[in-house]
Amino acid sequence: MTTPALPDSTVARPVAARGVTSLGEPLTPVTVTRRALRPDDVRIRIEYSGVCHSDIHNVRGDFGPKPVPLVPGHEIIGRVTDIGDAVTDFSVGERVGVGCFSDSCGTCGPCLAGEEGYCDNGTVMTYASVNPYGDGLVTQGGYATEIVTRDRFVLHVPESLDPAAAAPLLCAGITTYSPLKHWGAGPGRRVAVVGMGGVGHVAVKIAVAMGAEVTVLSHSESKRAEALDFGAVDLVSTADGTFATTCRERFDLILNTVSVDLDVAAYLSTLRFDGVMVQIGLPSRPMSVPVRLLTGRRRSLAGSLVGGIAETQEMLDFCALHGVAAEIELIDADHINEAYERAVRSDVRYRFVIDASTF
Amino acid sequence: MTTPALPDSTVARPVAARGVTSLGEPLTPVTVTRRALRPDDVRIRIEYSGVCHSDIHNVRGDFGPKPVPLVPGHEIIGRVTDIGDAVTDFSVGERVGVGCFSDSCGTCGPCLAGEEGYCDNGTVMTYASVNPYGDGLVTQGGYATEIVTRDRFVLHVPESLDPAAAAPLLCAGITTYSPLKHWGAGPGRRVAVVGMGGVGHVAVKIAVAMGAEVTVLSHSESKRAEALDFGAVDLVSTADGTFATTCRERFDLILNTVSVDLDVAAYLSTLRFDGVMVQIGLPSRPMSVPVRLLTGRRRSLAGSLVGGIAETQEMLDFCALHGVAAEIELIDADHINEAYERAVRSDVRYRFVIDASTF
Repeated sequence: MTTPALPDSTVARPVAARGVTSLGEPLTPVTVTRRALRPDDVRIRIEYSGVCHSDIHNVRGDFGPKPVPLVPGHEIIGRVTDIGDAVTDFSVGERVGVGCFSDSCGTCGPCLAGEEGYCDNGTVMTYASVNPYGDGLVTQGGYATEIVTRDRFVLHVPESLDPAAAAPLLCAGITTYSPLKHWGAGPGRRVAVVGMGGVGHVAVKIAVAMGAEVTVLSHSESKRAEALDFGAVDLVSTADGTFATTCRERFDLILNTVSVDLDVAAYLSTLRFDGVMVQIGLPSRPMSVPVRLLTGRRRSLAGSLVGGIAETQEMLDFCALHGVAAEIELIDADHINEAYERAVRSDVRYRFVIDASTF
Repeated sequence: MTTPALPDSTVARPVAARGVTSLGEPLTPVTVTRRALRPDDVRIRIEYSGVCHSDIHNVRGDFGPKPVPLVPGHEIIGRVTDIGDAVTDFSVGERVGVGCFSDSCGTCGPCLAGEEGYCDNGTVMTYASVNPYGDGLVTQGGYATEIVTRDRFVLHVPESLDPAAAAPLLCAGITTYSPLKHWGAGPGRRVAVVGMGGVGHVAVKIAVAMGAEVTVLSHSESKRAEALDFGAVDLVSTADGTFATTCRERFDLILNTVSVDLDVAAYLSTLRFDGVMVQIGLPSRPMSVPVRLLTGRRRSLAGSLVGGIAETQEMLDFCALHGVAAEIELIDADHINEAYERAVRSDVRYRFVIDASTF
């Protein structure tokens, strides 16, 4: 399948989007400028755009001042409509994706190690970063009809993946795949996933596909049936503190996907010798860590942000191979603000994805 | 060189020691019983016994109730004077060592992984543990003229090591060697050692011998010359908070050997991408960890207790090869209480070792 290149890739052009013109306000229709195609750029007609919780935090100002207008969205699936002269890895019509970031220095230690998301010189985020191309533009995200992205930061999306359900993989997928792989989730390893929301449910599916024995730790007993459907062996309620005793020294790896202030000591005590608890969620307050819980069993408390581009491609191929995708609720652009409200109160199973044809 | 076996190894016998008969009291001459030689036991005439800070905590009751009389000491160097019938790995006259623990279950995961110090069923410590041999005896440590220890928990001490200076390797040495090795200290890696006392100065020497670039973080500028003598490239003062800025994202690994309550955020900020801060010291209060300092650079906060027997042997051989030993002040038995007072106020460079011929 091919889509003809549009005629005006040589000039910057306006595209329809949804965003905020003032932090904390509802999203409204806005127009943003996509740059003229550079030699190594790919122009993408967006099909689906996932709603990440960090989108909500960003447009509401929870993460500090941001430039406006601000168009969020970093879970982007679409098809290539044009490529720059130097692009060899993508063809017009191909299904592709763009994730959390869209450029990096390429020369620092993390970049050279394929960890562009931790660039020492500042990763260029898919939205709300200043373009490194000298055009003075601020990057604008995926709640839009199209986007222009440097080829090295575009992912190949296997056709076998449902494109709407694949959108959240670009953030929730790689954010969980990367630490699960880095800390050795796989056969013979017992993995706990804390929280089974938009990120956590993808973590459960990926860890199961990796061959690990997965337990969900959730305050919500009501998700038990779905946890087992996703392949978990158990869901243990964290509504009271008894899980620290019933799960004592059970897990090799805990992936904490929630951002609430929790009793980290209770969770650490469920780790076995050499076990690691990895934070993806960002609680508002510092964690209070009794050091003996680390030393006595050589445990670690770690944090992870995201994975690099090569690993994101690996994750997409892995998900295609194992039939892993997000559980989604597809919405149109006019329902984003309502979806934000519902996401904040965890009233979604499990991720909103916007049909980009409605922007 | 051989020492003739003493004639009475078939019966339990009393040996001269120093210990406390009540927690918190000064050490006095006491007599403890060493068991009759079992088939896999080694009898050792002790030559030198190191003074570890945990000895002080134990006899003072800081680590909770302990059985009395209590003879501390788990940095033991001596020569074999007799062996049980089933012992094949040791000969009478050989120089040997005993460290922090003297038995373990041998069947749990950590034991099977060679990590007897983390035995799931409770490591038998060299002192203040109940013997697992059914004799009802409590283990008594190395502040004594001799000890009987199961062969699998006895170390071969290379003759090229100065035996007095080697004593602290049995605890301070393996306590630092193990995490340094586990977290990859070596060429091209920047290691910070926090605190340069009895444990820290051994950590510096070992990390240097491993090929790492070593920086000492110390509140005491006065140790600069010695730090450089030990092979460190720098000593950075932590007396004010400026080191967090001057050393920002400098280290791959921090080994924290001090037990004071410190500003862990400042230390974490000196770690590079994928950096790890390892606690050996045990602060009295939980550490307050801002999670963003972990996630933003995929950092970890970890803890380590000790290394296993095979690794302790490896460490002794490594130290012999690289000429690494502790800096010690040799004392006789009558000066132990004074040495404790001095150790508590850090008035020792760097480790007290007792001449066991004076017990």
